[in-house]
Amino acid sequence: MNVKEQFLAANAHVDEAAVQPLPNSRKVYIQGSRPDIQVPMREISQDDTPTAFGGEKNPPIYVYDCSGPYSDPSAKIDIRSGLPALRAGWIAERGDVEELPDLSSEFGRIRAADKSLDELRFPGLHRKPLRAKAGKNVSQMHYARQGIITPEMEYVAIRENNNRRAYIESLRSTGPQGEKMAKLLGRQHPGQNFGANIPEEITPEFVRSEIARGRAIIPNNINHPESEPMIIGRNFLTKINANIGNSALGSSIQEEVEKMTWSIRWGGDTVMDLSTGKNIHETREWIIRNSPVAIGTVPIYQALEKVNGKAEDLTWEIFRDTLIEQAEQGVDYFTIHAGVLLRYVPLTANRMTGIVSRGGSIMAKWCLAHHKESFLYTHFEEICEIMKAYDVAFSLGDGLRPGSIYDANDEAQLGELKTLGELTQIAWKHDVQVMIEGPGHVPMHMIKENMDLQLEYCDEAPFYTLGPLTTDIAPGYDHITSGIGAAMIGWYGTAMLCYVTPKEHLGLPDKDDVKTGIITYKLAAHAADLAKGHPGAQIRDNALSKARFEFRWDDQFNLGLDPDKAREFHDETLPKESAKVAHFCSMCGPHFCSMKITQDVREFAAQQGIAEAEALAKGMEVKSVEFVKAGAEVYSKV
Amino acid sequence: MNVKEQFLAANAHVDEAAVQPLPNSRKVYIQGSRPDIQVPMREISQDDTPTAFGGEKNPPIYVYDCSGPYSDPSAKIDIRSGLPALRAGWIAERGDVEELPDLSSEFGRIRAADKSLDELRFPGLHRKPLRAKAGKNVSQMHYARQGIITPEMEYVAIRENNNRRAYIESLRSTGPQGEKMAKLLGRQHPGQNFGANIPEEITPEFVRSEIARGRAIIPNNINHPESEPMIIGRNFLTKINANIGNSALGSSIQEEVEKMTWSIRWGGDTVMDLSTGKNIHETREWIIRNSPVAIGTVPIYQALEKVNGKAEDLTWEIFRDTLIEQAEQGVDYFTIHAGVLLRYVPLTANRMTGIVSRGGSIMAKWCLAHHKESFLYTHFEEICEIMKAYDVAFSLGDGLRPGSIYDANDEAQLGELKTLGELTQIAWKHDVQVMIEGPGHVPMHMIKENMDLQLEYCDEAPFYTLGPLTTDIAPGYDHITSGIGAAMIGWYGTAMLCYVTPKEHLGLPDKDDVKTGIITYKLAAHAADLAKGHPGAQIRDNALSKARFEFRWDDQFNLGLDPDKAREFHDETLPKESAKVAHFCSMCGPHFCSMKITQDVREFAAQQGIAEAEALAKGMEVKSVEFVKAGAEVYSKV
Repeated sequence: MNVKEQFLAANAHVDEAAVQPLPNSRKVYIQGSRPDIQVPMREISQDDTPTAFGGEKNPPIYVYDCSGPYSDPSAKIDIRSGLPALRAGWIAERGDVEELPDLSSEFGRIRAADKSLDELRFPGLHRKPLRAKAGKNVSQMHYARQGIITPEMEYVAIRENNNRRAYIESLRSTGPQGEKMAKLLGRQHPGQNFGANIPEEITPEFVRSEIARGRAIIPNNINHPESEPMIIGRNFLTKINANIGNSALGSSIQEEVEKMTWSIRWGGDTVMDLSTGKNIHETREWIIRNSPVAIGTVPIYQALEKVNGKAEDLTWEIFRDTLIEQAEQGVDYFTIHAGVLLRYVPLTANRMTGIVSRGGSIMAKWCLAHHKESFLYTHFEEICEIMKAYDVAFSLGDGLRPGSIYDANDEAQLGELKTLGELTQIAWKHDVQVMIEGPGHVPMHMIKENMDLQLEYCDEAPFYTLGPLTTDIAPGYDHITSGIGAAMIGWYGTAMLCYVTPKEHLGLPDKDDVKTGIITYKLAAHAADLAKGHPGAQIRDNALSKARFEFRWDDQFNLGLDPDKAREFHDETLPKESAKVAHFCSMCGPHFCSMKITQDVREFAAQQGIAEAEALAKGMEVKSVEFVKAGAEVYSKV
Repeated sequence: MNVKEQFLAANAHVDEAAVQPLPNSRKVYIQGSRPDIQVPMREISQDDTPTAFGGEKNPPIYVYDCSGPYSDPSAKIDIRSGLPALRAGWIAERGDVEELPDLSSEFGRIRAADKSLDELRFPGLHRKPLRAKAGKNVSQMHYARQGIITPEMEYVAIRENNNRRAYIESLRSTGPQGEKMAKLLGRQHPGQNFGANIPEEITPEFVRSEIARGRAIIPNNINHPESEPMIIGRNFLTKINANIGNSALGSSIQEEVEKMTWSIRWGGDTVMDLSTGKNIHETREWIIRNSPVAIGTVPIYQALEKVNGKAEDLTWEIFRDTLIEQAEQGVDYFTIHAGVLLRYVPLTANRMTGIVSRGGSIMAKWCLAHHKESFLYTHFEEICEIMKAYDVAFSLGDGLRPGSIYDANDEAQLGELKTLGELTQIAWKHDVQVMIEGPGHVPMHMIKENMDLQLEYCDEAPFYTLGPLTTDIAPGYDHITSGIGAAMIGWYGTAMLCYVTPKEHLGLPDKDDVKTGIITYKLAAHAADLAKGHPGAQIRDNALSKARFEFRWDDQFNLGLDPDKAREFHDETLPKESAKVAHFCSMCGPHFCSMKITQDVREFAAQQGIAEAEALAKGMEVKSVEFVKAGAEVYSKV
């Protein structure tokens, strides 16, 4: 039974495939300073090293887990009820919110009253909307600046550490073999981080100070208490976003919910609902109620629907009502293209590809038609008032991002970026959380300039980039052209990478494309974390490489980002289950494997009891004789 | 009928699919200073811009073409005869080679005499093997150092320029519209090339000087006259290699020939035959006789077969005979792991993944067993004598490359690199062409060190790298983890990138995997060329972006690296043929497309006859009124 069927059926549960834990994986929770802080991570158990290679026990590996309760077999999943409101108590106990008697948005109330929508409507929400009490500010930035460490901040501190220190310490405490394991798994190359400041251990106080400084955000709307807190900032793990959303041409609510659960299964840290088709409001409700990750939107898309697609008919009032409508549903961050100023629009006339951001082009058209600055810009302080009443974070949109290599880093793009920096200061004056969106299409050698200028203009507010795509010539492979740019800009300091799927520029991504986009971006984000030297980031690489070297095929699959695909690829060449424990690699066959030969070399050295390379080199002559005598095939019988 | 069938059938031709030109593509030849220098390139014709967008004619685009006669419908293809020997005259006219009465290799003669192999044997070779006359050196480097510009050098100069200058000039000469086109297509961001020296136009003399200096090579065995010359060096376009080859576990001769034709169709600049299974000799003959691109091998693989897989039984004599056997078949470059020195072997004992290079581990095992330096090292000068007698280029193998992030840039790896630099000087003393192989698994921030040390240790001999993979945690996606590293190291100066397929570490690549690996590496190489600022590299990006912007879907597909996949992806969302000329993007539907809105903005500006952004900004107030009056939908009827 899949989500689509459940959606229509009574007592439905989500897709079996989406609630199966990944292979050899178990969800574990780390408790914080209070019982209701339970931070999930995924524990991947490993096989023992084959006896021939030493027979040692390999410890479980802990990885960051975005999948929420879906991958926890003990959780009761019913997408018609939504997820438990784990943050409800934290929000309530701060005493600064009030329950509203009804939705504040006129549009929201009309939809709620429309009986014809009953069939589409999410049935499980029985809460009233929350809003900050008059004069209150419920943003995490506001608390941080008051010196308050919220449960959300503690949660993300635990989550970012991912049990790493305790893990390595626990290995060390188990004697010489544990010591060896701690050394092997815990070793990491020093990173190069271009002025980032990543501490050895993330403390709740560090989280607070980064949020107060504006260098990081926790997008956590008070009306999305189902969300598991997650932090975006360049001194934390690099995050990724997956876009979903229906359009006039395709897909249904059910498919969008399924895409969301699918996205987080593979590692989406946030999901943007970019729906532009029918029933945007209802689709969003289903997604948010079932999402353990932050949800972002581009409210101007829905506002445009409300004026039948005529950009010039947009008004501040319609937009404002849309913001409130979405804020009371629980959207965690809004992309707002407030930097598209009148004076930048003509700068795009001689571009190769003009304005490619949908939000940017809507606003450009509005500016041209009205010949004045957009309501997003002129009403920016009022928008801030709304944001802080619900703790919605800004994702200041790059409406003028380049759509081709030709247009990279041009005056329009960089002019807008500067304006986004000015708007950041205004938002911060209101203690509203901000991140900044970035390109686009940029050749490799011009990527760093984007990061450097963003840090300068936007005073280190987190950067959130789409790619960038490093060439235009590979339609069908833009997850890769952009994955290259994403890994690089992540290394340089981008806090969150917006995925690109293989269908970019060509069509709507299906589930496979979504997965491919996510895995590509997870590996890019991880490559960035390794390069920045995030403490503990290399543990997973080390564990996987050890498994690979020891021919522990199952562990090699399971420690990877996509165990299913790795297994499938392996089985194409060597389908027999017995091959999973074979001491040779499927590339080269049983009698010709470099890993096996290396193992011989190493075992030979180990048997002589010589650990030091120098001593080894010195004593080689004697041993070489023994080696030949022994048949030069230590594992010839394996 | 596929290659497999033809292989067995009389009068066979290659796979229909592999001889179809790519869509809207035509093979053209640029003639050099003499009639027998005919340099192929692919001309991609374009549709006119839709009338609504100006109706201008879009010129054809010329791209580098590795596919040889296979994509030329006028060529007669018969894989049992092999390709025409286009270089035969050039080789003969230099007067420094002699035809040998028989194969010089003992093994080769035994195979030739073995009647049981007749069925497998390539039937189309009627030439005798060539070798340099006594005392002669037939390497391109030797000619270059004598100040001789060979036809091969002129050929690659034309090929590298790819008609670029003539192209832009011819556009300019066609009046104002041509001027505009030349400006749009010809514009390029200045690159950043870390000390490379890429001239505005590649002349034959520049090619000569680079080869003489050792900074570039043309791998072109005199016994492979079918090959179309191609240059590898950091001041030239970044090249890619595709590995094929059977193993004990799978695939046949026919499949390998088909993989070769498939590889070059998608852009493989060289192909390495890494066969380790049966009938290596016969497989190679079929591949070389049908290959228009340089073929590389790792001779130690075959030598190992000759001693039944026992590394310690390898001898200089067996290896030497293998080199000669392969040199007389026409292999263009040999990977030789002569840098695996005895003293480096123990340095790998404490690695996470030991020695992962097959050649490296074979030699390490040999060194351990015999406790002396390998015959590759001790007989290096004799190897040079063989290389220069046939013009086989060295690809000095990195037998100690890291197999995991953990092992990146360690003492074993960098020690070997230094030795490869010393061997380069010896090879150059013999005027033998050299490139140097590189890693492996390396996190992003440690990639540049590899390039910098290679340039320093190896005196700018071309670098030829595998990836590097920037993380270990994504089995199934290692074309991407490595594509990131490949693009970066290409930018830093690597001359050729060895592809990695999605099956890396897991299994044997099939045709789809080969294609995915090649396209990934082509886009990485191109991203590197853009970043380095190769003159004209951006023309294709510009043309594709222009097509994209103007909704010329077919042109967008055809200008890309994989027209078939782009079309297939598009058709999944909007399958109707009419949608190919639709003025909206399949992502957003007919009423909501940023490209369309941008086009409105631009057309509006153009209609006012104002080209300058400043003037536009100044005059905006008046025009905005007109814009609203005109309905604010310039293309509402499209």
